[in-house]
Amino acid sequence: MDNKTQTRAQLTTPAVLIDLAKVERNIRRHQDYANRHGLKLRPHIKTHKLPQIAAMQLRAGAIGVTCQKVSEAEAMVAGTPDIQDVLITYNIVGAEKLDRLAALARKVKLSVVADNKTVVAGLSQRFAAEASPLAVLVECDTGAHRCGVATPDDAAALADVIAHSPGLSFGGLMTYPPPDGAANVQSFMSRAKALIEAKGITVPVITSGGTPSMAKAGDAPVTTEYRAGTYVYNDRSLVARGACGWDDCALTVLATVVSVPADNRAIIDAGSKTLTSDLLGLPDYGHVLGRDDIRIDQLSEEHGRLVSDGPIGLKVGDRIRIVPNHACVVSNLVDQVYVTSADDANAGGTMWDVWPVAARGRIT
Amino acid sequence: MDNKTQTRAQLTTPAVLIDLAKVERNIRRHQDYANRHGLKLRPHIKTHKLPQIAAMQLRAGAIGVTCQKVSEAEAMVAGTPDIQDVLITYNIVGAEKLDRLAALARKVKLSVVADNKTVVAGLSQRFAAEASPLAVLVECDTGAHRCGVATPDDAAALADVIAHSPGLSFGGLMTYPPPDGAANVQSFMSRAKALIEAKGITVPVITSGGTPSMAKAGDAPVTTEYRAGTYVYNDRSLVARGACGWDDCALTVLATVVSVPADNRAIIDAGSKTLTSDLLGLPDYGHVLGRDDIRIDQLSEEHGRLVSDGPIGLKVGDRIRIVPNHACVVSNLVDQVYVTSADDANAGGTMWDVWPVAARGRIT
Repeated sequence: MDNKTQTRAQLTTPAVLIDLAKVERNIRRHQDYANRHGLKLRPHIKTHKLPQIAAMQLRAGAIGVTCQKVSEAEAMVAGTPDIQDVLITYNIVGAEKLDRLAALARKVKLSVVADNKTVVAGLSQRFAAEASPLAVLVECDTGAHRCGVATPDDAAALADVIAHSPGLSFGGLMTYPPPDGAANVQSFMSRAKALIEAKGITVPVITSGGTPSMAKAGDAPVTTEYRAGTYVYNDRSLVARGACGWDDCALTVLATVVSVPADNRAIIDAGSKTLTSDLLGLPDYGHVLGRDDIRIDQLSEEHGRLVSDGPIGLKVGDRIRIVPNHACVVSNLVDQVYVTSADDANAGGTMWDVWPVAARGRIT
Repeated sequence: MDNKTQTRAQLTTPAVLIDLAKVERNIRRHQDYANRHGLKLRPHIKTHKLPQIAAMQLRAGAIGVTCQKVSEAEAMVAGTPDIQDVLITYNIVGAEKLDRLAALARKVKLSVVADNKTVVAGLSQRFAAEASPLAVLVECDTGAHRCGVATPDDAAALADVIAHSPGLSFGGLMTYPPPDGAANVQSFMSRAKALIEAKGITVPVITSGGTPSMAKAGDAPVTTEYRAGTYVYNDRSLVARGACGWDDCALTVLATVVSVPADNRAIIDAGSKTLTSDLLGLPDYGHVLGRDDIRIDQLSEEHGRLVSDGPIGLKVGDRIRIVPNHACVVSNLVDQVYVTSADDANAGGTMWDVWPVAARGRIT
């Protein structure tokens, strides 16, 4: 069947639907925010994993993209010539990955991060043999307690090591802040910047990130770049935080009711293999559009259980659309997404493209 | 690099490792249990999604395989001629899936389940045109409250509908019981069987399932077949239930320490995209082999956070092996697994094959 003539009712379920009109609107809104606050936007591709959407973000004004793993960057760069500037926000360890990183650095403007001397030494050893130095930013822990140097003094010390390492250049400072962490970012980064500049080293970039914190990114004016991912689709976790409404959610999961075994219970053909078991602090596994009374209270791998207090009012064969708790992980589970520009919740909507998720499953 | 000469230390991480010697032992142990209790074993392929391991299970005495979705069955049947008998334990809805089901039924002995008349009508309409009838089992709810008819009377009524539907034959009764549900299975199935036989209809198969309940499967002697998946690899959830020990866990995730930002904290390159966020009632995200003192207390998509009460004693570049909470979902996240017969936890172990996960991501 020609996918371009498939209507939503004809799609085999479960299927991940992307509403490109909403994607465009989300991109525009966040690019405008970045522009207003003098922030360069460098979207994280983890949410969509699609070269096509990265290209839309770049056309709207993004300065480049962010990837988390080398293999993600490889897939994205191979997918579109529009991507010419990539930041990999990860400590890269191991000879095989360093070789792939060097190959990538010959194709596009590339930068990475490091939070320790072992990683810096590995990068330096490999890139000393390359024609151009690799830009390395220092990852800073501003309160999320994941990766990152713990203090501005540690950041300055590692910046000094990078600046004096063969094959490397000091690229700036990077952090993934905790929720509502703008004040932390401002104080840590201002102090680290002053310490580094006191050593005679320029700090070209200070980059922070995270869609939930983006509305407060302007409160950390020391920041020059911002990395956000989820905003492009939005999801239930962001609706719950008040960052957007259901109408801003561009990714939905189309599912079919396969069983109504009790008056207040229905089973759909989407389980944790499509919706994931990510709760992100929410009480259950997704929001059924148009049915605030339904809870998805349990997932097996291929079954989703819907319950309601009163009669559930669904029959076998009915189709529903679900806004998942966490859009990024849903993108990672499917080989392809169905792209549409129609956004009614019912059977209508002509499909006009099927996109393979180019950077799905890229974990190395 | 020739994968057959790669040692574990050379593998790029994160990587999913399968110890085939442990797989063989787990298969043997559970086949022996089934034989002792007069149960035919029909392994669920959802755990491994590998035709190669299905073939091992069949050679050990399994009578066929279980799949959850039509597309899983397609991938498995395409992967090995050893698979000649498939039960799909799912209500199949929709013309496109029914066409694929009919194509599959022309290749292998196929049976499916149904728990409602709408699904039976769809199957009948499609299979009335086929040369051979499709065997349809009635799915029964013995307490798990997912799919399934609610009472033995409902089971008998639906069996009668199936037996009199063009294109179909009544295949028996199927349930996925709740934990420790053998007594429920015995009472529900005995009653349903008597009611159906009273209508003059034979009940060829009564199938129950689930690795956690398998040790008690003998307590429901009405059962003729058993479907289990996880036993082939085992995982942390089964160790926690006392069903096996760490040495029985055949699937492990190899990860590299990329950061040690504090004395009691280390970050590895495996996050929820490899280990999944499935907790299955456990307090954290996996067990680090040989390090009972470490907790994986937080996962991002590409980061795993390890914490300990005292000094964590890890350095950047160290490799660890993790037994995940839930093996089945890990198989669904990776394009390939590394198969080994060596099982020391350190750097040794010659890799001797890389297997693509043939039925990964098959959600339709």
